[in-house]
Amino acid sequence: MKAVVITRSGGPEVLEIQDVPKPQPGPEEVLVNVRNTALNRADLLQRLGRYPAPPGAPQNIPGLEFAGEVAELGMNAHRWQKGDRVMGIVGGGAHAEFVTAHQDAVAAVPPNLEWSGAGAVPEVFITAHDALQQAGFKAGENVMVHAVGSGVGLAATQLVSALGGRAFGTSRTPDKIERAKEFGLESGFEVPEPIALSRLSAFAESVTGGRGFDIVLDLNGGPYFSASVESMALRGRIILIGGVAGGMTNVDLYQILGRRLHIIGTVLRARSLQEKIAATTAFAREVVPLLAQGSVQPVIDSIFSLEKIQDAHRRLESNETFGKVVLTISGFARKV
Amino acid sequence: MKAVVITRSGGPEVLEIQDVPKPQPGPEEVLVNVRNTALNRADLLQRLGRYPAPPGAPQNIPGLEFAGEVAELGMNAHRWQKGDRVMGIVGGGAHAEFVTAHQDAVAAVPPNLEWSGAGAVPEVFITAHDALQQAGFKAGENVMVHAVGSGVGLAATQLVSALGGRAFGTSRTPDKIERAKEFGLESGFEVPEPIALSRLSAFAESVTGGRGFDIVLDLNGGPYFSASVESMALRGRIILIGGVAGGMTNVDLYQILGRRLHIIGTVLRARSLQEKIAATTAFAREVVPLLAQGSVQPVIDSIFSLEKIQDAHRRLESNETFGKVVLTISGFARKV
Repeated sequence: MKAVVITRSGGPEVLEIQDVPKPQPGPEEVLVNVRNTALNRADLLQRLGRYPAPPGAPQNIPGLEFAGEVAELGMNAHRWQKGDRVMGIVGGGAHAEFVTAHQDAVAAVPPNLEWSGAGAVPEVFITAHDALQQAGFKAGENVMVHAVGSGVGLAATQLVSALGGRAFGTSRTPDKIERAKEFGLESGFEVPEPIALSRLSAFAESVTGGRGFDIVLDLNGGPYFSASVESMALRGRIILIGGVAGGMTNVDLYQILGRRLHIIGTVLRARSLQEKIAATTAFAREVVPLLAQGSVQPVIDSIFSLEKIQDAHRRLESNETFGKVVLTISGFARKV
Repeated sequence: MKAVVITRSGGPEVLEIQDVPKPQPGPEEVLVNVRNTALNRADLLQRLGRYPAPPGAPQNIPGLEFAGEVAELGMNAHRWQKGDRVMGIVGGGAHAEFVTAHQDAVAAVPPNLEWSGAGAVPEVFITAHDALQQAGFKAGENVMVHAVGSGVGLAATQLVSALGGRAFGTSRTPDKIERAKEFGLESGFEVPEPIALSRLSAFAESVTGGRGFDIVLDLNGGPYFSASVESMALRGRIILIGGVAGGMTNVDLYQILGRRLHIIGTVLRARSLQEKIAATTAFAREVVPLLAQGSVQPVIDSIFSLEKIQDAHRRLESNETFGKVVLTISGFARKV
């Protein structure tokens, strides 16, 4: 089968399409013929040699999510039938024509979702939904999403809005903030330079009537994290999901104490299979119905064929994206 | 009645014993004739003008905990009888001959506890127990306590040990570590200077067989907090209880992310009455039986009469204490 292979650490030029052996499903796994998949920042980091795949995942084939048709069933996998439309997350290996996944770690693709959209769903909606769950999100709460124009940011914004909360967000550009308003963003805070974050707490006070944010979903880290700590409501929760803006950061512990904050670091990829199944099950129960009725939807920045994987990486690295960079498997029709 | 009064912000010399009006119990409150009370760091901060009493508490009479006899009952307070031995926490006002408290925010003093010991119990055992509860402590877990020789530190060490966990601790001096071993400490880490904390993660690896700490109770903050973040097990929990070693601190967000840490800031004093009742109820249910059977016990550094309040403050400020600085109300016999 065709697959993206990381031939060595480096820039997009180290990515090649190679012919590799098709994976075999384990007893409780399904083999999925991938129709669409998408890029995540973890793929960029893995390509740079800074984020090795977790044990058990293909080590040199990137790709954390997929949508496709069930092609083969493992010996004890009775939950799905051949041809079923499914989507899910894996520890790696999804940028390929075929991928295997545990039968309980995939969800049905609702009929209204086209393949390209379905490929853009699993990672961001599972991540955003899981983060809101960990934060104990309740209707009426004020939620700030850092990097609101990112895939996870837009999924979170839509979920908060659909579930009765108020969604706020940061972005480097006013353009992304305007576009995010179509997806439920109430009000945005522009951060052209990190120094602008010194005014985040004033923004929080202003939009929440002095209360502060109940929840921050922080995909950036660095100075965004520090500024969030100063902008929280009493008993607020910060869910740290990413650190693209920096790791070492200066934090005011007295704010954590005095406001009785909860800070939770979360990553999806490194979780155990059982935890991934739990997150996917919650997603299937609570988010897939919202997708089916159209109250939340995938947001696609751009679509590349698998062969254009280098261009797709360059696009995500540009930081100009709004929503997901999708990869479509052109050889699909030939393979069924 | 006699009470300690903070006459202005400053050193121990601003504390005076004054005759002030006896408080009146509200409908659901009891008036307690205080036999013993104790000092907390919050009293020092309040004296310095850096920690005002919460709304509803006496503003210039310090004191967060008490043990004594029920002297009067509010109109709707039927839970206790006059003469009952009770202990509890309040937002302030306990360094006095009488204090009022909600009837559900006090617990019975077990018969085996002497007054001096009882006065040293509530704040530290409620704080330590509540922190372990928030951390989701389970038997078998590895718990690091920063400032193991403090009142809360020794209460936490005893609770962890009594409930089947492994207790580790830091202290500035080897002497306190040795003494803490009598209270269940398995192994201690000496921090004569903050630079020593750079070796904390190696200590954590060594004593936990490479796993890291499941829980850190951090009474110090500052560099202790930063070093803790580097020393945690996967899904470890840091409960930040105090910040005597500093507020602004440099933290590695990648560790919070990668280890999926939970960080929880907690203070007892500023909580709502309902929350204080909940914490006291859990303490009465789960800790008082351990006190009654002697498997945990108050640790007393020194006992001062109320009149020696200035000396008591100097003692706590010396950072030489091991356990609680207790205040005894000498005029008690005369008042009953």
